[in-house]
Amino acid sequence: MEMSHRSKPYAAIIEAAEAKLRKIMGIPDNYTVLFLQGGASLQFAMIPLNLLRNSKKADYIESGAFASKALKEAQKYGDIKVVGSSKADKYSYIPKVDPSEYRQDADYFYICANNTIYGTKFHEYPETGNVPLVADMSSCILSEKVDVSKFGMIYAGAQKNLGPAGVTLVIIRNDLIGEVDEKVPAMLNYKLMADNGSMYNTPPTYGIYMLGLMFDWIEGQGGVEALEVRNREKAALLYDYIDQSELFKGTAAKEDRSLMNVTFVTGNPDLDAKFVAEAAKEGLVNIKGHRSVGGMRASIYNAMTLEGVQKLVDFMKKFEVENKEA
Amino acid sequence: MEMSHRSKPYAAIIEAAEAKLRKIMGIPDNYTVLFLQGGASLQFAMIPLNLLRNSKKADYIESGAFASKALKEAQKYGDIKVVGSSKADKYSYIPKVDPSEYRQDADYFYICANNTIYGTKFHEYPETGNVPLVADMSSCILSEKVDVSKFGMIYAGAQKNLGPAGVTLVIIRNDLIGEVDEKVPAMLNYKLMADNGSMYNTPPTYGIYMLGLMFDWIEGQGGVEALEVRNREKAALLYDYIDQSELFKGTAAKEDRSLMNVTFVTGNPDLDAKFVAEAAKEGLVNIKGHRSVGGMRASIYNAMTLEGVQKLVDFMKKFEVENKEA
Repeated sequence: MEMSHRSKPYAAIIEAAEAKLRKIMGIPDNYTVLFLQGGASLQFAMIPLNLLRNSKKADYIESGAFASKALKEAQKYGDIKVVGSSKADKYSYIPKVDPSEYRQDADYFYICANNTIYGTKFHEYPETGNVPLVADMSSCILSEKVDVSKFGMIYAGAQKNLGPAGVTLVIIRNDLIGEVDEKVPAMLNYKLMADNGSMYNTPPTYGIYMLGLMFDWIEGQGGVEALEVRNREKAALLYDYIDQSELFKGTAAKEDRSLMNVTFVTGNPDLDAKFVAEAAKEGLVNIKGHRSVGGMRASIYNAMTLEGVQKLVDFMKKFEVENKEA
Repeated sequence: MEMSHRSKPYAAIIEAAEAKLRKIMGIPDNYTVLFLQGGASLQFAMIPLNLLRNSKKADYIESGAFASKALKEAQKYGDIKVVGSSKADKYSYIPKVDPSEYRQDADYFYICANNTIYGTKFHEYPETGNVPLVADMSSCILSEKVDVSKFGMIYAGAQKNLGPAGVTLVIIRNDLIGEVDEKVPAMLNYKLMADNGSMYNTPPTYGIYMLGLMFDWIEGQGGVEALEVRNREKAALLYDYIDQSELFKGTAAKEDRSLMNVTFVTGNPDLDAKFVAEAAKEGLVNIKGHRSVGGMRASIYNAMTLEGVQKLVDFMKKFEVENKEA
């Protein structure tokens, strides 16, 4: 933590972190990797400020609260079309959009790949042709194999699958990095960040070091492919139980279910609260749904083991037996 | 690091960090404390974007590379006057400005309190009357007693005296927090950050935790007052030796010398390089001057002990004896 970011030992750390990520994620050479600050929320502005370069048009799918926030930021800077939204249905599914709705001259097309709060994900990505697809993968990055070449840009706040909060990973195709309006703050300029190897100013050095360790761990687990197998197993265990339960109901559309965030309710807020409280006593913490939706949410990121999910299912079964009549 | 930033245990951590800072720094109640991201470099833009609210004028003193970067960002957004600059003299002193140069209708007056690269500091702050004084204290915060009430805003990147890189501390007088232009990115809006207690999005949780531990440490050392005594002792030890040395020369104007960064040269770049290399062998690392200026720089932040400085002086004496004839 005391190491100068301009020192040789630290240069080795940040370069190794990038090299490891390129390897485990299969990032093509024509993409730049950036380690930034400010979280996904700063990307919500950086993306339009950098990528609205030609038509100043972008298409957005509004599939959750964070996609909605991204959309609101983008609306400050260009002609933004909401090509699909599930807002009216509490974001319980991924909007299905006919590609004829996509604008062929848009500067980019935006999605949030996994919707943390609602427990949904894109199981198939929109085919946007020549329009670069930009994806917020904050809550699903490295959870399953992704073909980076299908995206113009992938980004993620670190705090789910990457490392400690305070690092934002950006993977961007080189041709999308270019000049920005002169009024864009220096720190919000991808080109300046890229030209300086993420060291225009002091980066979050320790966080990046931790990301490097995480990439080592992923490789040791057998890579992203192995994690995906385990993640599918974990999610299936939980969803299979929920689907046959008479007490618990999943809240996300089945075909859009997330592998990372499993959302469910009993249908009775008091019983939900009782479940959350009793689960905590068993060491099953942070099971409460996001403050904006209530209910329950099991976030089963890469770090969660199959055994951990089994423990949750066992507890849910026990709770169901004890509370079925309630 | 795995703790949710919305959890009760984490709320206790961030609230305690703020309370401790308020105590050791004597921050008045009409000031808000923010824990942000992006480093001082993002503040270079946030300050004009938030504070150029009325006349859209601001006065800057250009006392170093970071003040100059701050100035360039501000020039994107308003009518900026450079009331003093030491750029032509390689920033070797703090520009002395007649207060008649200050614009009475400026929205703020900007200084960089300590110039890390050049080893200078403001020993007296400009008397700006009703114009809020904004100070970058990245490399001197908590190194000496400061009367916060004399400032409109004080800010600092964490990585010198506060904790790990990736946290930016902002202390701002409440009346300076207000509405911003609708095109300002959400994450660059002090009001939004303040209204959400630095938790509009996930903050750099672990870094803030470390800041809290640092504030404990400072209190345990006897507070900022005790650190200031020690810092003055450390700096005097080094400057006194340099002033009587026949080999080493200080590069900063005597009356503007920093307590944190002591810059010096031999006058011979080869000998400087030899000094840096031999010092490193003795465990005296990171003594090389900033890549933009060369020479040597001893950064003797709060964490450096008097014994550490004595070790450096002893080594300099030995080096001088061995190299005087060179």
